[in-house]
Amino acid sequence: MMKSIILSPIAYVGNARKGMDDDFWGEVNSEITLVDDLPEACFGGIEAFSHLEIIYYFDKSDKELKGAAHPRENKNWPKMGIFAQRKKDRPNHIGATIVELLSRKGKTITVKNLDAIDGTPVLDIKPVVKEFLPLGKVTQPAWVSELMKDYWK
Amino acid sequence: MMKSIILSPIAYVGNARKGMDDDFWGEVNSEITLVDDLPEACFGGIEAFSHLEIIYYFDKSDKELKGAAHPRENKNWPKMGIFAQRKKDRPNHIGATIVELLSRKGKTITVKNLDAIDGTPVLDIKPVVKEFLPLGKVTQPAWVSELMKDYWK
Repeated sequence: MMKSIILSPIAYVGNARKGMDDDFWGEVNSEITLVDDLPEACFGGIEAFSHLEIIYYFDKSDKELKGAAHPRENKNWPKMGIFAQRKKDRPNHIGATIVELLSRKGKTITVKNLDAIDGTPVLDIKPVVKEFLPLGKVTQPAWVSELMKDYWK
Repeated sequence: MMKSIILSPIAYVGNARKGMDDDFWGEVNSEITLVDDLPEACFGGIEAFSHLEIIYYFDKSDKELKGAAHPRENKNWPKMGIFAQRKKDRPNHIGATIVELLSRKGKTITVKNLDAIDGTPVLDIKPVVKEFLPLGKVTQPAWVSELMKDYWK
């Protein structure tokens, strides 16, 4: 059942963020530019959406948690399974973040609040559709809000 | 720059939905079971979250739109680039959907509102964290709400 799935980057991230630090993504704007193989028509009409979901690949991570661990190695927070946290060192190393679309020019879009460093390969881009946002009230454990305190600052 | 990225399924979907129809996902509950290679600790603590994001692979799709087309081939709606719609026939064939977590037992979680058919390979599971939901008001073109009319029914 463990069939390999082979993907290719559809775009790359360009921004001023070179290091893999955890916090302070709020001021980061990023450009996302389609690869040579994909025409600008792939972005046709995208300006009609305020938000996009960027699915990307943590290509700099060479670790993979296949079990549970304390988020950010903080022992005050409970051990959580890798699929109960958003840590980058995960099977398949996929990141997924909702961003605000600022502008588009040809094969490049500029977005706000993408937590990916310069050069990150992008696997997919989807428009955020209201009907796909959570149905019902979202609940989460208290440590999450603590962890996120400085994330978007 | 078109480096291949090789991924493996981390889990598979089990449900009663065998066909690739567009609408009426509202009554579908799905089980998601981790592959043999991953221990149940990967789900440790996951019950603390009400919602999860399931990132999966449209393994039955053998088409790939590399440009723009009318959503659902409906000429009343504008031509949209593939990254301005959520259509399955896309580069890398990645799906991403927010679901409600109903229960967990060992290596299996049961979720509501997953729009993936029986046997679909899952690439990642992330907890929905409020701080990662859209910042600011979400806007989208009118045709999207029309398209989504029967989706969750």
